[in-house]
Amino acid sequence: MKKQSIDNSFFHHTSVAIAGASTSYNIGHAFVSCMLDSGFKGKVYPLNPSGGEILGLKVYHSISDVPGTVDYVISCIPARFTPQLVSDSAAKGAKIVSFFTAGYSESGRRGGLDLEEELLRVARARGVRLLGPNCLGLYCPEIGLSFACDFPKEKGSVGFISQSGGNSIYLIRAAGQRGIRFSKAISYGNALDVDESDLFEYFATDGETRIVAAYVEGVRDGRRFLEALRNLSAVKPVIILKGGCTGAGAVAASSHTGSLAGSDEAWESLLSQNGAIRVYSLDELVDMLVTFSYMPPPQGRSMTVCGSNGGFTVLTADEYIDAGFSLPSLPPKDQHEINDVVARFSNTDAGMILSNPFDITNIGSGEGQYSIMRLLADNSMFDLVVAQVSISNSGWPHERSPFRFWPDMFLDALLKVHCEVSKPMAVIIHSSITDIDCQRALELQQKCSSAGLPVYISIPSAAKAMDRFLRYHEKR
Amino acid sequence: MKKQSIDNSFFHHTSVAIAGASTSYNIGHAFVSCMLDSGFKGKVYPLNPSGGEILGLKVYHSISDVPGTVDYVISCIPARFTPQLVSDSAAKGAKIVSFFTAGYSESGRRGGLDLEEELLRVARARGVRLLGPNCLGLYCPEIGLSFACDFPKEKGSVGFISQSGGNSIYLIRAAGQRGIRFSKAISYGNALDVDESDLFEYFATDGETRIVAAYVEGVRDGRRFLEALRNLSAVKPVIILKGGCTGAGAVAASSHTGSLAGSDEAWESLLSQNGAIRVYSLDELVDMLVTFSYMPPPQGRSMTVCGSNGGFTVLTADEYIDAGFSLPSLPPKDQHEINDVVARFSNTDAGMILSNPFDITNIGSGEGQYSIMRLLADNSMFDLVVAQVSISNSGWPHERSPFRFWPDMFLDALLKVHCEVSKPMAVIIHSSITDIDCQRALELQQKCSSAGLPVYISIPSAAKAMDRFLRYHEKR
Repeated sequence: MKKQSIDNSFFHHTSVAIAGASTSYNIGHAFVSCMLDSGFKGKVYPLNPSGGEILGLKVYHSISDVPGTVDYVISCIPARFTPQLVSDSAAKGAKIVSFFTAGYSESGRRGGLDLEEELLRVARARGVRLLGPNCLGLYCPEIGLSFACDFPKEKGSVGFISQSGGNSIYLIRAAGQRGIRFSKAISYGNALDVDESDLFEYFATDGETRIVAAYVEGVRDGRRFLEALRNLSAVKPVIILKGGCTGAGAVAASSHTGSLAGSDEAWESLLSQNGAIRVYSLDELVDMLVTFSYMPPPQGRSMTVCGSNGGFTVLTADEYIDAGFSLPSLPPKDQHEINDVVARFSNTDAGMILSNPFDITNIGSGEGQYSIMRLLADNSMFDLVVAQVSISNSGWPHERSPFRFWPDMFLDALLKVHCEVSKPMAVIIHSSITDIDCQRALELQQKCSSAGLPVYISIPSAAKAMDRFLRYHEKR
Repeated sequence: MKKQSIDNSFFHHTSVAIAGASTSYNIGHAFVSCMLDSGFKGKVYPLNPSGGEILGLKVYHSISDVPGTVDYVISCIPARFTPQLVSDSAAKGAKIVSFFTAGYSESGRRGGLDLEEELLRVARARGVRLLGPNCLGLYCPEIGLSFACDFPKEKGSVGFISQSGGNSIYLIRAAGQRGIRFSKAISYGNALDVDESDLFEYFATDGETRIVAAYVEGVRDGRRFLEALRNLSAVKPVIILKGGCTGAGAVAASSHTGSLAGSDEAWESLLSQNGAIRVYSLDELVDMLVTFSYMPPPQGRSMTVCGSNGGFTVLTADEYIDAGFSLPSLPPKDQHEINDVVARFSNTDAGMILSNPFDITNIGSGEGQYSIMRLLADNSMFDLVVAQVSISNSGWPHERSPFRFWPDMFLDALLKVHCEVSKPMAVIIHSSITDIDCQRALELQQKCSSAGLPVYISIPSAAKAMDRFLRYHEKR
C-alpha cells in the first residue's frame, strides 16, 4: 500500500499528549516543559498511570481519559507498551505518534524488530502515522511545538530533517545562534514509517520552506529517495550531511538508528548527481544555511577582503584563492582613491596592507573604515566583499586596550556600507579564545545577523561555504 | 660576512628600554605595561623626549640618559629616527634592537628599503642584532619578557617563531588556553637581520625547546633555510604554517612583511622533503602543539571512541576512519564484559551504541562510565582511546537539565582511567554554542589539560591532528 503523503496537517496540531511524563523530572516531564516554554498554542496532556500534576497541568492516567481528541502523541514509555499506545491514540483521533522510546530495530535484537513490525501493523490499520521510533519528533515554531526549551520561537524558511535527535538539537541551536530560523524540523530516528523521502516530498511543495537541510544515516528505499531528492533539489537548495559513510560509522549508524548506511562512493554519486550539496560536519551544515539564508548570489568570483591584522589578512587571501576565488589588484586610479582616504585618516600607512586583500587595523576611526569599505563595495570589479575581524587580537596588549572596541567600530562601518550598497557581503568574526571573547563574538554575530549579513566564525570554513554556494549557482 | 649565530644570550636580558613610550596610552606605553604585568625580572626603562613617568617608572629622555647598560631595546618611534636609535643602543651595550616600528621594505617604497639597508649597516658595524622591523619581538616567560600582558607566565617546551605579530598573539593565547607553554617565542616581522634560519638553528640546539612551530611568509635564503629546517626536524618535530602560498596571499605577504613568498608547490615539496609537518591554519597549528605536547605516540591506528550522543558518535567514527584509523569491533568475550557492565548500571540498553564506537549517554553514573572506559582502555586491541562529549547537548531540553553535569561526570571518569592506565588517550570537548557553553567548555578543557590529556575542540580537527601525529611517527 502506498503511504499517504504528508501535508501541513502533519505539523499543525491543537493538542499534544505526552505518555510517560512523571511529576518529578524525566524525559516525558521535559517534553511537557518544552511545550509550555515554547508557547504551544494548543492543549498539553501529560499521561501517567500515577496521575498527579506537572507544571500546573493535570496528569491523565491514560490517553483514553483525556477529554476530547488528541492530535499528536509523544511516547516516552517502555517499548513493550507502545503498540497499545498507538491503538489508544488512534481511538482518540491522533494523526501522529512520535517515539522518544528506543529499543527497536536499532537494538539488533529480534524482539526489537518484531515490535517495530507490530507498531507499523497497528498504525497502518488505524490510519496513524509514526515518527521514529528513537527520535525527538516535531519542531514547528509557528504553533510553539518544540522538543527543546530554547529553540528559536520565531519561524523561518529552513526545513530540516535529522535521523539523530542529538544532532538535531545541536544543529537547530547552533544555526539559531547564527540567525537561522526554521519552518519545520523533524527528528525522525529509525524512520520506521515517516522517512526522509516522505519529508523531502513534503518540503518540495511547502511554501514556507525555502532551503532544506538533512542529516541522514541511511535510506529505506533508495529509488524513491533518489526521486524525492531530485524533485526537491530542482526547486530548492538541499544540503545533506551523510552519517555512517565509513565502515565503523555504518556499524554505529546501524546501532544508532537501525540504518543500512550504504557505501560512501554510492552516496557521493547519488548526492552529486541529484543536485544535493554535500557537507561533512554539522558546522559545515550551519555555514551553508547561513550562506543560503543571508547571501544574495554573487555575479562571479572576483572579491576583496578587508579587515584586521596582517597575518590574518594573508591567511584569508590564501583560503579564498584556494577555494577558487580571485582577489584582483585595484587599477591605479582606484588605488589612489584608497590611498587618499588613508592619508585623510592616518598620518602613516605603516603596519597596514593597502592593496587587495586590505588590512586596515591602523585606521582608528569608524569614518575612515567606512570610507575605505564603501569605495571597495562600490567598485564594480568586485562581485563580493568579505570582511574579517579577529576578536582575541583586539584585546592586545591587554583586556583594557583602547583597541578593544575596534571590532565594534569596524562592524558598524561595515553594516553602514551593507545598508547603502546592494552587493553580496559577508563577515568573518573569528579567533575567540576566552569566555569574554566568546561573549563579545556572539553579541557581534547577532548584531550582524540581525542586519542581514551572513556571519562566519572561522576563515577556512567561510571560504569553503562560499565556494559551495558559488558552485551551486554556477551549475544552474 | 657570516652572521653570528644566536645563543641563549639573545633571550636572557637584565634590562629593557622602550623607545617611544608615552605617559598616556600608546604602543610604547603598552610594551612597558606588558613587562610589568609579566613580571620582567630586570630593569625597564621607558624612553621619550618628553620625559615624565609611566606606571611608576621614570621616563628617560633618550637611551643615552639611562644609567648603566641596556640589553634589549624595543623601538616604537617613527622609522626615520631608528638608525640613530640603533647606534645609541649599541653605545649602551645593547645586544638586540627590536622594531615595532613599521614603514620599511614592506611599504614597497624606495625610502623604506633604504632605511632597512641603513639599519643593517649600522647594526653590523656596531655588533647589534636587529629583530623585525615590523614585529613584536621576544616572549621569554622564564625571565618575564613578554609582548602581551596575558601570555602564560610559566615556561614550557614549545619554541615558536612568527613573521606576523598578530598571528603570534593569537597562537600563543589560543595554545596557552589549551595548556601549551613556551620556551621562547619570537615575532620577527620583516626578518631584515635575525631570520627564520637563525632561529631554527638556535632551536635545534636549545635544550629547553622540544617542539618547534613557525608561521612563515617567506625566506631570505632558501638554501640556508632548507638546511636549517632539515637539521632541526632531524631532532625535533617542526610544524609550519606557510602564509602567502597563493597569488593574492603572496601580494599581501609582500605588503605585510616584505616577503617573497615563493610558489606553493615549491613550499609543499620543500616542507615535506625536509621533515616539516605542514598545517593550513593557526587552529591546526594549535592542535598539533597539543598533540605533540600531550600525547604519547600510539603503537598503531587501532582505536576506540567513547562518548555522548548517537549522532556525534557516528560522525566521530566517520572522521577517524577517513583519517586512516580503524575502529575494530570487540571480540564476543570482551563485548559480553561491556554488556555486563551496562546491565549493572542501566535497566535498558535503549538509546545507546554499545559496540565500537560507543555512545554511553544513557549511563547516568560516573562509576558505570568509568567501568566501561576502563575496560576499553585496558583492552590491548586498542592503541588509542578517544573520548568525545558535546557541551551544548548536555543542556537538553533546557539549561536546568539534570543531565547538564553529564560532561563533568564523564570527564572525571575519563581522567580516572587516564591516571590508572598508560595508554594514549585524547578528549574532544566540542559543540559549544552559547557563552555559558563556552565558559563550561573552557573550564573542562583546562581540567583535562592540567591532568595531561590532549584536548581538542572539534571532531574533524581532532582526527586530522592525530592523523598528522601518527604519520610523523610512522615515517621515523
